Amino acid sequence: MYNFEFEVPVKILFGKGSIENLVPEILKYGKRVLLCYGGGSIKRMGLYDTIIKKLDQAGIFYKELSGISPNPRIEEVEEGIKIVREHKLDFILPVGGGSTIDCSKAVSAGVNYAGSAWDLITGKAEIKNVLPIGTVLTLSATGSEMNCGAVISNLKTKEKLGFGAPPLLPKFSVLDPEYTYSVPKNQTAAGTADIMSHTFECYFSLNDGAYLQDRFAESILKTCIEYGPLAIKNPESYEARSNLMWAGTWAINGLLSDGKKTAWSVHPMEHELSAFYDITHGVGLAILTPHWLRHCLNDKTVKKIADYGVNVWGLPKGEEVYKTAEKAIECTSDFFKSLGIPMTLKEAGIGEEHLKEMAEAAVAHRGKNGVIYGFQELRADDVYAIYKAAL
Amino acid sequence: MYNFEFEVPVKILFGKGSIENLVPEILKYGKRVLLCYGGGSIKRMGLYDTIIKKLDQAGIFYKELSGISPNPRIEEVEEGIKIVREHKLDFILPVGGGSTIDCSKAVSAGVNYAGSAWDLITGKAEIKNVLPIGTVLTLSATGSEMNCGAVISNLKTKEKLGFGAPPLLPKFSVLDPEYTYSVPKNQTAAGTADIMSHTFECYFSLNDGAYLQDRFAESILKTCIEYGPLAIKNPESYEARSNLMWAGTWAINGLLSDGKKTAWSVHPMEHELSAFYDITHGVGLAILTPHWLRHCLNDKTVKKIADYGVNVWGLPKGEEVYKTAEKAIECTSDFFKSLGIPMTLKEAGIGEEHLKEMAEAAVAHRGKNGVIYGFQELRADDVYAIYKAAL
Repeated sequence: MYNFEFEVPVKILFGKGSIENLVPEILKYGKRVLLCYGGGSIKRMGLYDTIIKKLDQAGIFYKELSGISPNPRIEEVEEGIKIVREHKLDFILPVGGGSTIDCSKAVSAGVNYAGSAWDLITGKAEIKNVLPIGTVLTLSATGSEMNCGAVISNLKTKEKLGFGAPPLLPKFSVLDPEYTYSVPKNQTAAGTADIMSHTFECYFSLNDGAYLQDRFAESILKTCIEYGPLAIKNPESYEARSNLMWAGTWAINGLLSDGKKTAWSVHPMEHELSAFYDITHGVGLAILTPHWLRHCLNDKTVKKIADYGVNVWGLPKGEEVYKTAEKAIECTSDFFKSLGIPMTLKEAGIGEEHLKEMAEAAVAHRGKNGVIYGFQELRADDVYAIYKAAL
Repeated sequence: MYNFEFEVPVKILFGKGSIENLVPEILKYGKRVLLCYGGGSIKRMGLYDTIIKKLDQAGIFYKELSGISPNPRIEEVEEGIKIVREHKLDFILPVGGGSTIDCSKAVSAGVNYAGSAWDLITGKAEIKNVLPIGTVLTLSATGSEMNCGAVISNLKTKEKLGFGAPPLLPKFSVLDPEYTYSVPKNQTAAGTADIMSHTFECYFSLNDGAYLQDRFAESILKTCIEYGPLAIKNPESYEARSNLMWAGTWAINGLLSDGKKTAWSVHPMEHELSAFYDITHGVGLAILTPHWLRHCLNDKTVKKIADYGVNVWGLPKGEEVYKTAEKAIECTSDFFKSLGIPMTLKEAGIGEEHLKEMAEAAVAHRGKNGVIYGFQELRADDVYAIYKAAL
């Protein structure tokens, strides 16, 4: 196990009706709020009205940043920063999924920075002196509600980049699984794939002696496998929605990665798909994952992939290890397919035209010296081969 | 899944050499330190000298509370409070296992309370206005390094009581697995049993839909089963010591219990053994656990115990469910025995003489209306039957 620091002071308010504690939590930090949300699902489910009423009753001043995109864009961040400065707001309240939260984090980071907010995303400038954030989650997927990371897209430069800093940890997050009842089937599937992919990125590493972390990872994978299909079949299953929600939160807050050497592989490859084609992140991850695993399969990695098959998919122990590993990859692919996810790039609307360019961009944005150092080293030609296999 | 709040802002510094960051962490909170430790193992391993040197170099004033007992006593707490008041100390640094940390928490709670510190343990007075604590852990067992609970004994009244409050969460904890290399075999075994028991207390509950939490619990159990024996066989296995240490921390900080209705059963029963006979806590837990499970085994609980057997011990699925459950209990008992733990009360020096009295005390101290509401309801005669079976 490698050395690490773990410090995640986010207060989680989990369960039905947790919104009742929203106002007292906000008032610990501010009283002039930027309310952020996306395409209006929070209005359809009545959550918007609930929150507005609470803010009004408490005399909390607020302005809105609405219409945040599924892959939030730097222009939306800049708009949020402008509103905060104009109205001297002191707290940011994203109500939505990871996109809304990520956009809010970028606004939080940018408010007190004099230059272009894009500098903070690219790492050109340091993130400090941020505005406090509290979140109300309505989608189980990105885990942004309990970590300090975020992803912002720049469609002009065709970049979709991750960034993060401890000050961006939300002060609190309200996690009411009932708010995810209205998430459509395809988004539930994509969210489940996203949670699993975060877990895979941490899980698939070699010889780090982080046994506990890998068992925790398998716990999250089993939870997704148990409840992803159930949430699609029965969207108002509280048991399914609550388990998925809590699994998504723990998949990417340090529990699975701390103590391990993890360098993410599928996310860098997928981010180029989203940057070039604006597809749903979780769909891109699901498409690429089995092909990535197949590409990585070799004498060094086979045991880990086979263990995954035995521990997560319940494959029989003691069979020929390559056979078990290949079966595990097949189970993964079949599972995503069973959730209704289109499992080829073509079905997702992506052709051959930019594959080479995207492969080079993936390595350039997320690699070092032309290599993504993950479960297996990936160079641009590896990424290209994976994209090709996924067509 | 039941509603809950999760908020554990303890900063964990994990790994070899983490002590290097001790002084900067202390200086965030204070510069007049009460250094607490137990019987001197920290002197034998050189950790005492390391810390003293660091405090001296940083010009941090300190006084010592040493000789804290394995079951820390209220008199030791009172002595600590006296030293803090006399020297106007502002920070408490326990270096040791759960006993030392628990005693320090009680000192922290008592310093600014005018009455008897025992009031805070019994719940007669509220815990507030505490002194900040940071810990250096040398034993994997109680999880006190990342939670706000503690247990203090009063030998005069024959009481061993748990208490806790969020302000008692340590500000930071230094977890260097190498500090546990010198833990003797029997203490390693007892610590492993303690971690497993914390996990069992959360895991064995009925129909709460907290699937993820139960998979997390199984992860910790598997880690103890994998590495407990290895740490005993090879005390300087970093892999074994690091996995046990991190497992112990997560077994009792909310991850396994939040979202579930858990009422502890074996701890209340064991606390009376320790209160009456001052035996090692983990040994008492190991002795009682299999008999408790057997006593609980019925049509309501059998599925959960059988699932435990399948998921944790790898017993075959689909066999007759009582057979699987009984085999799971046997595996548990055999495992503790394999660690060298004396598995009867008699071997631990406890006879029939106080069984009835202890059974009544267990229910009185930890029950409500004469009942301990756990996996199964336990009345005094149930506890007595379990003690008898464990003789």
